[in-house]
Amino acid sequence: MSLQRRDFLRTIGAAGVVSALGRTTAHAAAPEPVPSPLLLRRPQALQTGARIGIAAPASGVTKRELKGFFSICETEGFEPVLGRNIDHSIGYLSANDQQRADEFMAFIEDPTIDAIVCARGGYGVMRILPMLDYAAIAEANKMIMGFSDITSLLIAAHQLSGIVTYHGPVASSTFDPFTAESFRTTILGQPTAVEGAGGDVLWTFSDDRLTVLQSGFGRGRLTGGNLAMVVATLGTAYEIDTRGAILFLEEINEEPYRIDRMLTQLWLAGKLQTCAGIALGNFRNCEAKGISISGPSFTLREVIDERTKDLGIPVVYGLPFGHVKSKLTIPVGLRAELDASNKTLRVLV
Amino acid sequence: MSLQRRDFLRTIGAAGVVSALGRTTAHAAAPEPVPSPLLLRRPQALQTGARIGIAAPASGVTKRELKGFFSICETEGFEPVLGRNIDHSIGYLSANDQQRADEFMAFIEDPTIDAIVCARGGYGVMRILPMLDYAAIAEANKMIMGFSDITSLLIAAHQLSGIVTYHGPVASSTFDPFTAESFRTTILGQPTAVEGAGGDVLWTFSDDRLTVLQSGFGRGRLTGGNLAMVVATLGTAYEIDTRGAILFLEEINEEPYRIDRMLTQLWLAGKLQTCAGIALGNFRNCEAKGISISGPSFTLREVIDERTKDLGIPVVYGLPFGHVKSKLTIPVGLRAELDASNKTLRVLV
Repeated sequence: MSLQRRDFLRTIGAAGVVSALGRTTAHAAAPEPVPSPLLLRRPQALQTGARIGIAAPASGVTKRELKGFFSICETEGFEPVLGRNIDHSIGYLSANDQQRADEFMAFIEDPTIDAIVCARGGYGVMRILPMLDYAAIAEANKMIMGFSDITSLLIAAHQLSGIVTYHGPVASSTFDPFTAESFRTTILGQPTAVEGAGGDVLWTFSDDRLTVLQSGFGRGRLTGGNLAMVVATLGTAYEIDTRGAILFLEEINEEPYRIDRMLTQLWLAGKLQTCAGIALGNFRNCEAKGISISGPSFTLREVIDERTKDLGIPVVYGLPFGHVKSKLTIPVGLRAELDASNKTLRVLV
Repeated sequence: MSLQRRDFLRTIGAAGVVSALGRTTAHAAAPEPVPSPLLLRRPQALQTGARIGIAAPASGVTKRELKGFFSICETEGFEPVLGRNIDHSIGYLSANDQQRADEFMAFIEDPTIDAIVCARGGYGVMRILPMLDYAAIAEANKMIMGFSDITSLLIAAHQLSGIVTYHGPVASSTFDPFTAESFRTTILGQPTAVEGAGGDVLWTFSDDRLTVLQSGFGRGRLTGGNLAMVVATLGTAYEIDTRGAILFLEEINEEPYRIDRMLTQLWLAGKLQTCAGIALGNFRNCEAKGISISGPSFTLREVIDERTKDLGIPVVYGLPFGHVKSKLTIPVGLRAELDASNKTLRVLV
């Protein structure tokens, strides 16, 4: 399924968010943080002149890969600040564990830095989770953003520091208009009253091409990210809490039997049964490659259906986030409404 | 590293076990179950005429693939009994979850069946773990054997039913002389007093070609299996208990960054720090395939070293079990001594 993203602006516009998002307006009237029922603190919306640290807590990048992000910063009047390790490389990591933790914590502790965008995913962030100071992260309450491998950092900081974190592009992402607009809307948007919504609405995404696996309506705290990295939190101090949550999951380059194994582990851990809804992204290149393990495979759709059909909650497939070119920025920890029957995800503040 | 297994008979012989393993002797004088400090019950040694159920709780097989096992059964005077699903196929599973659970439990509950050998791994056993009756499995106290995907069943039955289970060949394995001899020794062997050992010795494996990653000596309950399947228990009711254990792990066809992720999850879950020793098998085809995720990779050895070097316990690499042609049958739940300095693993009863 290939979703074009032209609907995003239209549908966000329909919710009255983008229309209030002229730069001047947004910067002039940054919303006060609104405590959620979970007492989560949403970082302050960024102002013109905000300094955004680019950290590489997993793998590194070349500076050339950051052009798209530099361009966004220029447009918005943000100043990108390069972390000390971002273009280094040791194996698949940008730097050793202590160096990566230090780079990240230096941005947290630097009062002149307003937000942290991870340079890329790759692999390695979970290695440094025990080395981070979650009290300092809570106190700083800065925007932390990324996806893929960064998932476990977003979950850890959300759960252990009680802050909202952002599952969105990394600094080496391609910021196409959809991605850029969602980033701006999420970071700078002013919540708007929408009739029938259970709170002020930060944004609404709606697309007729979403696949409804289970219809219905659910409301809960957003959490999730890359499936493999969500599963990699299980049994650890950073284990994802899905109670009452809208769980969003996406994956890339995994065979159906591996998707089955990961969803089954989540299910055995009781993580699917306690959700209020499941918002699946695109599982790119996750169809079976012929006969791989024993006989023919189930299809990706069969695997997902099998693990979600009896949960009694809404389940949709095909939301644009994570490993797709055009991606939403999803605030981990804010409440959302998943209206599967109307193919709509609405983020509340 | 390619280990030839010609040393096994010699080294087992050196411990005085194989020499006591003439069929008549073994069958005539089956050892009384010896309670371990954990009050685990070891299944009765099999007698001539024993009926061995072949179950397919994960993927299925063709009957042709069972020739090697039939041959072993003929030699030992065992009667193989085919499960109702073993040559069926639905996707990568032999049959649906209920049918696979039923086949397995039918063998557990059938008083004429003495042991259960899984037809193969593949994928799927973790899907049926909640459908098994662990009280009935405890009461039956039958030998349950397999490897790869079967790992999680071995851990679940060991931990929830309090029985010894067997990480050894599946019924579709090639039973080369090493594999066959280790199977016989483990199933039929009489424990023998060995000077300096902390209990009677079921068998000793020693091989100069093992790689000592950390020297030292550790004694503890054996547990483990396929790394991915061990990790897949985390956060669930079947989560591996490694406290005081000799943890054995092997893997196949995974990139170093994935081995890193899996070992890091075990480490974050506190599962490595509490072991008495780590006995690694061969990690076949787990070296980096060029540049896969971000820059060059670490080597497999670097990844393993990084996660085990500071544990202060013995760690060896290269034991023959799991996804190798010549494999040990390792009793999950029996105590063992890992003498890394002498490249020796000794199983106690």
